[in-house]
Amino acid sequence: MLIRLVSFIPSDNNLILHLPGGSVTPPLGMTSSAACVWGRFLVLFCLILRRVKSYRKELWFEAPTRRALINITPQVTACLGESGVREGLALVNAMHITASVFINDDESGLHQDYDRWLEKLAPHEPTSQYLHNRTGEDNADAHMKRQIMGRGVVVAITGGKLDFGPWEQIFYGEFDGRRRKRVLVKIIGE
Amino acid sequence: MLIRLVSFIPSDNNLILHLPGGSVTPPLGMTSSAACVWGRFLVLFCLILRRVKSYRKELWFEAPTRRALINITPQVTACLGESGVREGLALVNAMHITASVFINDDESGLHQDYDRWLEKLAPHEPTSQYLHNRTGEDNADAHMKRQIMGRGVVVAITGGKLDFGPWEQIFYGEFDGRRRKRVLVKIIGE
Amino acid sequence: MLIRLVSFIPSDNNLILHLPGGSVTPPLGMTSSAACVWGRFLVLFCLILRRVKSYRKELWFEAPTRRALINITPQVTACLGESGVREGLALVNAMHITASVFINDDESGLHQDYDRWLEKLAPHEPTSQYLHNRTGEDNADAHMKRQIMGRGVVVAITGGKLDFGPWEQIFYGEFDGRRRKRVLVKIIGE
Repeated sequence: MLIRLVSFIPSDNNLILHLPGGSVTPPLGMTSSAACVWGRFLVLFCLILRRVKSYRKELWFEAPTRRALINITPQVTACLGESGVREGLALVNAMHITASVFINDDESGLHQDYDRWLEKLAPHEPTSQYLHNRTGEDNADAHMKRQIMGRGVVVAITGGKLDFGPWEQIFYGEFDGRRRKRVLVKIIGE
Repeated sequence: MLIRLVSFIPSDNNLILHLPGGSVTPPLGMTSSAACVWGRFLVLFCLILRRVKSYRKELWFEAPTRRALINITPQVTACLGESGVREGLALVNAMHITASVFINDDESGLHQDYDRWLEKLAPHEPTSQYLHNRTGEDNADAHMKRQIMGRGVVVAITGGKLDFGPWEQIFYGEFDGRRRKRVLVKIIGE
Repeated sequence: MLIRLVSFIPSDNNLILHLPGGSVTPPLGMTSSAACVWGRFLVLFCLILRRVKSYRKELWFEAPTRRALINITPQVTACLGESGVREGLALVNAMHITASVFINDDESGLHQDYDRWLEKLAPHEPTSQYLHNRTGEDNADAHMKRQIMGRGVVVAITGGKLDFGPWEQIFYGEFDGRRRKRVLVKIIGE
């Protein structure tokens, strides 16, 4: 049961304690029996006190169209597995200001509804209606759409899983695609 | 002053250290005086190093109407008390994709304004205007309304309290009610 | 390399271990050589186990106009430096329910676009269109605008820096200004 946390290997001349973050040796000049006690202390404390873990990964996407919704739940789930975090929070956010990460339903009709609805609230055309587009961009509407859908989500992690209700799925919402863009996954916990 | 963290009880034949996560005994064969020192180590380290705490609870609601706003600040405050977390973050989110958790004012006129405003931005009727409703649902508008109001909130915890400004209150926003639905409260910190 | 974590100073008669949270002395009656071992334990554990850090600060703003967007990235970056957190999450949120904290582009044309767009979605006038304004307020529209732009953001901290994409900047969005209002910065991590 200790294997996941530490392995305690008494070798011929000295004791080395292998911990997730590296190896440590007992203080110099410590007798063998004292070093054994020392090792037990370390094992105990590692069990008693759980340390903060953190994990970071970038997910890359290139939508072939200006606007797209991509279900990224499998990638985020894989990140959580790599992180080893059992209890904590996962932040998943677009690293670009014309894109969104949000949680909703994986239903194609709804996705088309979202697209029409966002176009009604913040139409792409005429592009001249936005001052931002005078900078040479044509994506001012994408900056609006992303505010409605949100920059990102924070998801609870419980028992090593994304703590979701029945239909929750994580989406990358692209509003100015046709180029490589990133999503950040940051996980902290224990 | 140690009582909240640990209780150190020397019994007749052995020493048992009672910690929040369980009890531990000294290494076998350790002399009584050495065990006393061992116990002091544990107490010290528990004081010096604060461990990550995590807490999870589901709150259930059944709004009698299609749409409703429910002040859930008292329930979240109770969760925080149960968690014992003094410094950290609380995530409170709807576990359903047709509902919201958000922070705003507990003023009934404003709540009616929100309802009218959301109906204007994403009207419930005609239900046939949404492709999603071809699946047999009639709640596509609720998926839109929830995106405007947000899936959930992250609240700072300071000194064991929700770290709020003068009028901040947490609401469950129901946009497709008349059935039992859940809110997740996840707290991490120390 | 230990200096940032602890300083271990053997003085004439006793050993005192200086830790970030205060100082501790060895158990009474411990021999000098045992106290040396005791000190090494503490140092080791402080290295092995990283403790949760938390930081809190309020930023104050007084916009001279009803509506304003203020780039607060420099202040949040300064907070992060003060916190000493290397890996974790920063929550930055408006403490008032007629204001917002969000992440987008620092481009003046876009800021004017946001203002026009929010006025279209939730116009300030006529103020009589909102029931909330019957309480004597005239800021119901600000409560709507803030919901679209969001209460706050959670930002990843990696290597002691705000983990941002190429154009991300943090803004305080004021929708009912001309008075002193606050933003909360809460950082947790290690």
